[in-house]
Amino acid sequence: MVGEIKQIHWQETDLADLEQRYRGTFINSIGGFKSVCLVGTKNTANQSNLAIFSSLVHIGANPPLVGLVFRPDSVERHTLENILESGFYTINNICAEFVPNAHQTAARYARNASEFENCGLTEAYKSPFFAPFVGEATVQMGVEFKESIPISSNGTLLVIGQIKHAFFPENCLHEDGFLDLNKAGSITCAGLDAYYSTEPIGRYLYAKTDRVPTILTKEK
Amino acid sequence: MVGEIKQIHWQETDLADLEQRYRGTFINSIGGFKSVCLVGTKNTANQSNLAIFSSLVHIGANPPLVGLVFRPDSVERHTLENILESGFYTINNICAEFVPNAHQTAARYARNASEFENCGLTEAYKSPFFAPFVGEATVQMGVEFKESIPISSNGTLLVIGQIKHAFFPENCLHEDGFLDLNKAGSITCAGLDAYYSTEPIGRYLYAKTDRVPTILTKEK
Repeated sequence: MVGEIKQIHWQETDLADLEQRYRGTFINSIGGFKSVCLVGTKNTANQSNLAIFSSLVHIGANPPLVGLVFRPDSVERHTLENILESGFYTINNICAEFVPNAHQTAARYARNASEFENCGLTEAYKSPFFAPFVGEATVQMGVEFKESIPISSNGTLLVIGQIKHAFFPENCLHEDGFLDLNKAGSITCAGLDAYYSTEPIGRYLYAKTDRVPTILTKEK
Repeated sequence: MVGEIKQIHWQETDLADLEQRYRGTFINSIGGFKSVCLVGTKNTANQSNLAIFSSLVHIGANPPLVGLVFRPDSVERHTLENILESGFYTINNICAEFVPNAHQTAARYARNASEFENCGLTEAYKSPFFAPFVGEATVQMGVEFKESIPISSNGTLLVIGQIKHAFFPENCLHEDGFLDLNKAGSITCAGLDAYYSTEPIGRYLYAKTDRVPTILTKEK
């Protein structure tokens, strides 16, 4: 695959010597395309907040759990405070149409300013769920906080929540429970600032040692 | 965005009532496109192992840390055992050309069978790093185990490692440290079995409260 193209090798000392912002950009992008989403919260004084995250990770299906990584000293702090104070948050997909708005939520707005209003996204409530959803999102989850796990290696936190409500377009649900995110318009991201739409390669049959890889279907 | 398309709402009891495999497929896909990679390991008896993971998550850039979620009772067990025994593993990107091979590593091969050989991928060593890389991958990382963090909500483990070696195509590195995964041929996945190539939407300038979202560049 690399063929004639030269491969660069950086070892530990090379990585340590990179200028801080350069290293942040590099390490954030090397791991692959990421699960990017908008996390909606509200504190008990009714101040809403919306922040973009690219650290969503699937934790389990039964119960349905998702994880998010937080750096406590960053712009994500308001989101974390609201989650711990209220116990609830929403996770919303990002579609190509509102990528600029979603990206803008990363700016450091004041505590008493809502990113919904400042970034042009709709603060939507679905009674009786406490936290605000993104009205423009096609896939939305209402999540309840379960636990916050310190990562001692660098002082970040893994926040685990349980999906209590799932909202999604009827025409994106396959017969076997697969939710077609490409059809739902979801995008993915890389690094800190790059966004991508997707093109289906295919779904594969459950892998077995006595069967060759078999394509199940192209999604569209 | 949803417009005329009906949105389905499932709440906690609906999710709990889903048939187990259906729920696994649904919950694995609802969170968004995922960081998919191949994790290469070897035990001290020189038995290699290769497994596909879709739970890679960025933990931090300084030091450069990545996380992977493990379900201890699954096919990923051999990988976890090897990481804990040897202290090292590799993380390799997946390109469209070898998606079938990568998917096939999820089959339950015996402890003494290498997925490299059985799935048609090249077991590549880069001295002096202990664990095997995927020869076909264009982006490869040599990682050292740092800590294993139990997630009490469901008995899974978050394994944290530090990137000690980074290998990547020279022509994919931008001036600011951004690694162009689209150009490197990396794919993304959704759910348990669906793979996607990507199409750049664009990179955006660092978000600031006093600036409107500004596209920096299209990657190609």
